[in-house]
Amino acid sequence: MALTIQELADFLGSQGMPCTIDGDPGAIIQSVATLEDAGEGQLSFLANPRYTGFLATTRASAVLVRPDVTAPRPMNLVRTADPYAAVTAAMVRIHGHRRHPQWGPGRQACIAPGARIGPGANIAPGVYIDEDVEIGENATIYPGVYIARGCRIGRDVTLFPNVVLYERCLLGDRVTIHAGSVIGEDGLGYAPVGQKWVKIPQLGNVVIGNDVEIGANCAIDRATLGSTVIADGTKLSNLIAIGHGTRIGEDCMLVAQVGLAGSVTVGRHVTIAGQAGVVGHITIGDNATIGAKAGVVNSIEPGMTVLGQPAVSITECKRQVAVIQQLPGLKNEIRRLRREVDELKAAAERAAGGEPPAPGGREP
Amino acid sequence: MALTIQELADFLGSQGMPCTIDGDPGAIIQSVATLEDAGEGQLSFLANPRYTGFLATTRASAVLVRPDVTAPRPMNLVRTADPYAAVTAAMVRIHGHRRHPQWGPGRQACIAPGARIGPGANIAPGVYIDEDVEIGENATIYPGVYIARGCRIGRDVTLFPNVVLYERCLLGDRVTIHAGSVIGEDGLGYAPVGQKWVKIPQLGNVVIGNDVEIGANCAIDRATLGSTVIADGTKLSNLIAIGHGTRIGEDCMLVAQVGLAGSVTVGRHVTIAGQAGVVGHITIGDNATIGAKAGVVNSIEPGMTVLGQPAVSITECKRQVAVIQQLPGLKNEIRRLRREVDELKAAAERAAGGEPPAPGGREP
Amino acid sequence: MALTIQELADFLGSQGMPCTIDGDPGAIIQSVATLEDAGEGQLSFLANPRYTGFLATTRASAVLVRPDVTAPRPMNLVRTADPYAAVTAAMVRIHGHRRHPQWGPGRQACIAPGARIGPGANIAPGVYIDEDVEIGENATIYPGVYIARGCRIGRDVTLFPNVVLYERCLLGDRVTIHAGSVIGEDGLGYAPVGQKWVKIPQLGNVVIGNDVEIGANCAIDRATLGSTVIADGTKLSNLIAIGHGTRIGEDCMLVAQVGLAGSVTVGRHVTIAGQAGVVGHITIGDNATIGAKAGVVNSIEPGMTVLGQPAVSITECKRQVAVIQQLPGLKNEIRRLRREVDELKAAAERAAGGEPPAPGGREP
Repeated sequence: MALTIQELADFLGSQGMPCTIDGDPGAIIQSVATLEDAGEGQLSFLANPRYTGFLATTRASAVLVRPDVTAPRPMNLVRTADPYAAVTAAMVRIHGHRRHPQWGPGRQACIAPGARIGPGANIAPGVYIDEDVEIGENATIYPGVYIARGCRIGRDVTLFPNVVLYERCLLGDRVTIHAGSVIGEDGLGYAPVGQKWVKIPQLGNVVIGNDVEIGANCAIDRATLGSTVIADGTKLSNLIAIGHGTRIGEDCMLVAQVGLAGSVTVGRHVTIAGQAGVVGHITIGDNATIGAKAGVVNSIEPGMTVLGQPAVSITECKRQVAVIQQLPGLKNEIRRLRREVDELKAAAERAAGGEPPAPGGREP
Repeated sequence: MALTIQELADFLGSQGMPCTIDGDPGAIIQSVATLEDAGEGQLSFLANPRYTGFLATTRASAVLVRPDVTAPRPMNLVRTADPYAAVTAAMVRIHGHRRHPQWGPGRQACIAPGARIGPGANIAPGVYIDEDVEIGENATIYPGVYIARGCRIGRDVTLFPNVVLYERCLLGDRVTIHAGSVIGEDGLGYAPVGQKWVKIPQLGNVVIGNDVEIGANCAIDRATLGSTVIADGTKLSNLIAIGHGTRIGEDCMLVAQVGLAGSVTVGRHVTIAGQAGVVGHITIGDNATIGAKAGVVNSIEPGMTVLGQPAVSITECKRQVAVIQQLPGLKNEIRRLRREVDELKAAAERAAGGEPPAPGGREP
Repeated sequence: MALTIQELADFLGSQGMPCTIDGDPGAIIQSVATLEDAGEGQLSFLANPRYTGFLATTRASAVLVRPDVTAPRPMNLVRTADPYAAVTAAMVRIHGHRRHPQWGPGRQACIAPGARIGPGANIAPGVYIDEDVEIGENATIYPGVYIARGCRIGRDVTLFPNVVLYERCLLGDRVTIHAGSVIGEDGLGYAPVGQKWVKIPQLGNVVIGNDVEIGANCAIDRATLGSTVIADGTKLSNLIAIGHGTRIGEDCMLVAQVGLAGSVTVGRHVTIAGQAGVVGHITIGDNATIGAKAGVVNSIEPGMTVLGQPAVSITECKRQVAVIQQLPGLKNEIRRLRREVDELKAAAERAAGGEPPAPGGREP
């Protein structure tokens, strides 16, 4: 929707982000773009100082900037304390969120007679919903989704194409799962019998809280007994593997290609960066941060930041990396010390009138 | 199915796991749950001593425990040497394995006229089966599965939703592939011509043995020529990538997010832990173990355990990690040695009546 | 198609790969196989010297070899400077590329009335194509593919089963995307508000150039604003994650399980080996090479090869690895130096007539 710069500033002010305007408050904004891409009718923003140079060349009709930014030429600026937060609010205001296709009831979807579909649910052709499934109001289910028997899905849930839910999984309200993700497949549960692996039935399920978003092509194992849990407000990126029986707290953020083994307990508001891995049966405390590619093998205290393989505190990891980079120099210094100590020993021997020691002074 | 504690103990005894009962042998067990979750009518187990505390509070009707466990209060205990093996057997006995939906013949599936479907095969709507495909008896094919021409699938195979088999792949009996996995896509086969990449036709296939289970969202490349092979009894977790022409032996276990490059030869009963990677054209010996996140760049002898990046024997890796953690201390010790050696040299100079050396004693 | 050895040699000569023939130029070649697998009527090749032993035992009707190879027995050899390039050309000549099933128009696919489908496009049943989509001439769209509104797809594109394109993504000509890959899902874009995460609408798209091939089960985020870009000729393997707003140049090669965070700029002809990761907002120069499992945290100069976590130049990384392997020895040398220095100090003290120092000589 279009609005004037003045209307935008008023809106941001109403959201707790007061603004001042340089330039024409009546200029019209129709959409949002980067400084580089923006043209006539577009709003842009400058949050990261490294992009300041684009201010001179952008064709945006208005730019959100910090109060202290100097314009390189006459242009429409909207000054506010946090331009990134402001552009986020502006994007929601101007563009809103994704509007899904509307499929109308029953077109070519396979819905078992015993499934219970809430009012307003928007179910695509090519969806398969098994017996004893419950779908909440206004849920949107894209083509190719499979929902096994006994699943319960809250209201305003969005399942993108080809998402698969195994039996008896529970999803809260406003859950979003991106294309190709699989929820509730069997974990790697086998009992060793000699050199063979005997499958252990995976009887549990997956429970996903409200406002969880899961990226594309993830795999969340069902628990062997009990539940694998992803609590309210937690966000997962793509290609993430969660092992059976693992429990993730509220408002966590997991970046792409993270892997958690089974029976891990993750606290609330934990951040796990890309390609990190966590071994099974340990606990990650609230507000902990796990760095990219970290290999976590021990429980982590609340609030700690860890890095490295095996992961240690970020301070310790940086110290190790720094010393490793100095290693070639240290090795040379050890060689010099060896030579000098050998010389000192030889000199001492000579001073004492004894025989010179064998060169190198090393033990047999 | 429900049974009494006595019936359960008799069954476990018949499986080579003799038991003794404390409490009421007539109590009824209907299902299995964790100590924390179990209630009336449920069997639980205590295998890992760290969960001993739950014994006092569990509401399970019976608990499988080791012979030497002391009950904190009067309760029904079934004592046996290996409670974990016993609960696994009990889970199969009481719950059995997953029961698939039954779709009946031909409902909305796209089956080419030349495909040969075995008796009892259970094929969902939304499945696509191309020409010259053979499906064995009692196979279960979930919605959204695509099977390209020339594939051969054994009996009692289960393909979960949205599994894709490219042309001419072969699956043995009792193979299970979880949702979203792709078998037989082209590998990264290109010939460099200047700075361009010219595609090499990928003419081979994938051959999967009997009793193989593959997790969700894996990708198994077809061979350029010949076959990529996963031998009998091997189990893969989720999000695993196997390169073209790689051959994995019997009864291996690959944990989530493992990646093997092309033309790797893996022996039998090899374990590869989560997020490990193996470069192309090397051999992993029988019964080897590759630790989590290891980066394997050289062939591995049978029975070896390796860890680290680049991977070395676990003994060597632990020694390296230990010394790296001591590095800051070693660096300080080198500094002290330098100072003391300089002092000794200065003293020796003074003793010889010569000029004092330049401080630090370092070479130009 | 079958041809004689002479016809093959003539063909290779016409492609700039002159050959000489040992043996029968009239022998018939019908297909290509490895030395180990080949039989009557098959062409094989020997490029890697480690497979020379198979020359004695292969049953191939002809083998492409280097000019200087000595035959262990009478056999048909085609000698040429680069047997690997020659077999690649022979594979294309003899086998050609994959032939797709032909579905004919409109069978059970869901195609919105406003979609524009080019002549010769081959669209499978079970495909979903939304409004305002354009599909180029001769594109092949396999079952289970979902194409959201506003996508533009070039000519001769192949989308394998269950590929998902989110709205407004653009694909050039001759693009191939393997099964299960997802293009244009939302990236991990949230604004922190207290400990909660507020979703930022992801308004951008993904733009894929001509001749790009993408493996199975990848996930390519759409940009928040603007475009995530994969330029002409670039090839991706399986299970790769590309973050929002990242731009990859022409003719790059990304191996399986690579992850690039958001807003990365990758130059042209860059190679990124398996399981490597790159943090956001940095630049990888043209012709750079990133080693397997590398963790790249800083921008990389054109032409550089980096390795390790954190990634450093390959020279530096190898030096670090070498010194780390020497660490236990260096630690012992430091211990010896300490002992000898202590002895020298004690001797000097005695020579000076003073009191002996405390053993060890360490500071308090």
